Amino acid sequence: MRELPSLEKLALSFSKLPGIGSKSAERMAYAVLRMEKEDRDAFASSIKEVGERIAKCPVCGLYREGDSCPSCDEEGRERSLLCVVEGDRDATTIEKAGYRGLYHVLGGVISPSKGLLPEGLSIQSLLERVKAGSFQEVILALSPTIEGETTSLYVSKLLSPTGVKVTRLGYGLPMGGSLDYADGLTIEKAFEGRKKI
Amino acid sequence: MRELPSLEKLALSFSKLPGIGSKSAERMAYAVLRMEKEDRDAFASSIKEVGERIAKCPVCGLYREGDSCPSCDEEGRERSLLCVVEGDRDATTIEKAGYRGLYHVLGGVISPSKGLLPEGLSIQSLLERVKAGSFQEVILALSPTIEGETTSLYVSKLLSPTGVKVTRLGYGLPMGGSLDYADGLTIEKAFEGRKKI
Repeated sequence: MRELPSLEKLALSFSKLPGIGSKSAERMAYAVLRMEKEDRDAFASSIKEVGERIAKCPVCGLYREGDSCPSCDEEGRERSLLCVVEGDRDATTIEKAGYRGLYHVLGGVISPSKGLLPEGLSIQSLLERVKAGSFQEVILALSPTIEGETTSLYVSKLLSPTGVKVTRLGYGLPMGGSLDYADGLTIEKAFEGRKKI
Repeated sequence: MRELPSLEKLALSFSKLPGIGSKSAERMAYAVLRMEKEDRDAFASSIKEVGERIAKCPVCGLYREGDSCPSCDEEGRERSLLCVVEGDRDATTIEKAGYRGLYHVLGGVISPSKGLLPEGLSIQSLLERVKAGSFQEVILALSPTIEGETTSLYVSKLLSPTGVKVTRLGYGLPMGGSLDYADGLTIEKAFEGRKKI
């Protein structure tokens, strides 16, 4: 029986990525094998580079490449707004939607079943930032799930002694969708959040 | 607006893999960023290694790691049988199914719309191998598609002057499935290929 240990090793690396099963990992490893040497070298070096060049901002927790934080150190940002997100990608999504305040990355939401307790998240540093800063509003932009809701509640209680206004994103019908496809809970939340027109 | 050029470069490499869109590629790039340094280094080096260590056997076209071909040079193989496959992965599948003859990798099937003409496939080298060798049977194990069928027909006509028996894999109901789920063409082929019990 034939063996390609290098290929199997590569497939193993691919299978560690989110959502990649062993079949897909194998297919990807073969695709790498078929790549031009140039593309393969670029691939390998970018994997090393992300690790070497990108680091977390010690203040907000966002990834940054270079010495200055793209959010904390950028001029012209609305410094009275602080948006709390689970991870880096959420900040990118929110940024694309037009938000231009500051950020705070929690690193996840409280989920005891996944071993994520408040101590494992950047909640303490958030509290210190809010106490020390001059924020007028803290916007909790966490996932609309039980874990996200629980975390929002936990964080808002912790922040309440500081007197800063704490909000969460609105829930309701997603834009562009059909009412037909919305689930009962979303419709319930849309009713709760209805607005006068 | 924040920029992470290293991450984008890595996402671009991921998006060149089959079936990976830009969203998945970005998610994977972030996953690499979150990896332990050790895992990331192993990933990068295996990408380089598959290119350096794995090469195609000049005889059958199968990938091999090391000097000897896992098929051509393995002792105890049935050297009177030659199985023609589109690609390397098909050979792996066939090997798992218990086949222990020799292989010949075509590199695809004839598909003018995709720019794959007979000259671009290892058909000439197959003909030479069959002429020179002592094969009793050439088994065409190509995909049961129009392109696969056309290629099988083309190859079998080319091989007919050599007098070697040329066969193709049987078509019919896939094992373990329900008749309900089989399409009309498969059932038609299953009728054609029916056997006395």
